[in-house]
Amino acid sequence: MSKLSIVKVGGNVIENEALLLPFLQGFAELTGPKILVHGGGKKASQWAERLGIPVQMNAGRRITDTDTLELITGIYGGQVNKNIVAKLQGLGCNAMGLSGADGNAIKAIKRPVAAIDYGWVGDVQSVNSVFFSQLLNQRLSPVCCALTHDGKGQLLNTNADTIAAQIAIALAKQFDVKLYYCFEQLGVLKSLEDPNSLIEQIDTKKYKDLVDQKIIHQGMLPKMKNAFDALKQGVSKVAIGKPEMISSSIKHTTLTL
Amino acid sequence: MSKLSIVKVGGNVIENEALLLPFLQGFAELTGPKILVHGGGKKASQWAERLGIPVQMNAGRRITDTDTLELITGIYGGQVNKNIVAKLQGLGCNAMGLSGADGNAIKAIKRPVAAIDYGWVGDVQSVNSVFFSQLLNQRLSPVCCALTHDGKGQLLNTNADTIAAQIAIALAKQFDVKLYYCFEQLGVLKSLEDPNSLIEQIDTKKYKDLVDQKIIHQGMLPKMKNAFDALKQGVSKVAIGKPEMISSSIKHTTLTL
Repeated sequence: MSKLSIVKVGGNVIENEALLLPFLQGFAELTGPKILVHGGGKKASQWAERLGIPVQMNAGRRITDTDTLELITGIYGGQVNKNIVAKLQGLGCNAMGLSGADGNAIKAIKRPVAAIDYGWVGDVQSVNSVFFSQLLNQRLSPVCCALTHDGKGQLLNTNADTIAAQIAIALAKQFDVKLYYCFEQLGVLKSLEDPNSLIEQIDTKKYKDLVDQKIIHQGMLPKMKNAFDALKQGVSKVAIGKPEMISSSIKHTTLTL
Repeated sequence: MSKLSIVKVGGNVIENEALLLPFLQGFAELTGPKILVHGGGKKASQWAERLGIPVQMNAGRRITDTDTLELITGIYGGQVNKNIVAKLQGLGCNAMGLSGADGNAIKAIKRPVAAIDYGWVGDVQSVNSVFFSQLLNQRLSPVCCALTHDGKGQLLNTNADTIAAQIAIALAKQFDVKLYYCFEQLGVLKSLEDPNSLIEQIDTKKYKDLVDQKIIHQGMLPKMKNAFDALKQGVSKVAIGKPEMISSSIKHTTLTL
């Protein structure tokens, strides 16, 4: 089984040129098939402010009304995605940008309205693994933004961590998949104030303990849930840490079942 | 030689839902390999106004400073492109959005500064016909926006009419290419005030006469130049007219050598 690296990179990295360029260099130098998944939420919030579009968040998730969807379609699918693709091309990596609508890559269902109406937010329904495999076989590196579609003409906003995990799961049947979640921390920390408090290994049991102890909480919870879902469904390795981890031996958190 | 339709559609069509949807339906129903190329300049100008970014035009061409490039990357590559792709998917057409950076589809050179500094504007240098052929063979329909790249990490703003002509020329070696320029008029008119003054056939000689008589002028001049360049370099047919012409027998202007 050939190896496939799937790298998710967060907004704090991609919206900081000093962090973005070395990260993209590391990604470009990764050997073998690879996929990049990116966010862009911070930039979307800045542009929303410039345009006077209210930013509404609930538990770290963006409530996506029509104006917000139009905005993030431009930011995620255009500004952020095309800039990353152009820069990767400049680094010798044959990148190709994708929303979930392109090539019917990722289909989603609009989240049903419950206690909260998230608006144009989609939960992933299926990943077109045939399409991704074709691109990878053509030595293209897909660069995926946090947009999916419902197959009926509607774009939907979908969490980038979830997209990365769902692509990883869909391709785990054909590839030996390593999934990397890159953000601004060394990994999962016992205390956010102490960068030396890195937890290097977390298995299912330890994960439950850490949740019970409220060491893992807030924004880290859905990321960890995505990560363990991926491991349970055949992804070989999940790592959480700084972007440097994809191309160096810097410490990070490794998750195992 | 198998047939290939390349359809350029202008801003007046794509920014008007009442015109866009029937056009996309017609495009989705075209049989055989097909490529869509779109503009988005009107929407870019509206957003520039909302954001307080000055719009600077010279002879119908946008002067593209850094802020403007960032904006149009979002509008052309994101908002307009992804909306068209999602709508085509909803109509059963397996569309895939592209800037020139994606898959190294279209490389350009930043226009040298002469009397006017156009900023981040690129003149097409090469079209990756192998890449386009691969996509078409996979029954994907590329949807191209008016962005190219220099191969060194820089995106560039490039006229959509020119992109359509250059893709048509590059693929004319492998396909029997028909190039359609769709806009809000029936075709080339003797008098813009009289929709009945359509000129149905224009050959090279007639084109020169019409330019001499100043019947073809302004924005139509570069479009016609692109069209005749395409014919001279192997494109079988060029048509200029309303979007309906791609799927009906509505009158239009046909160009011949």
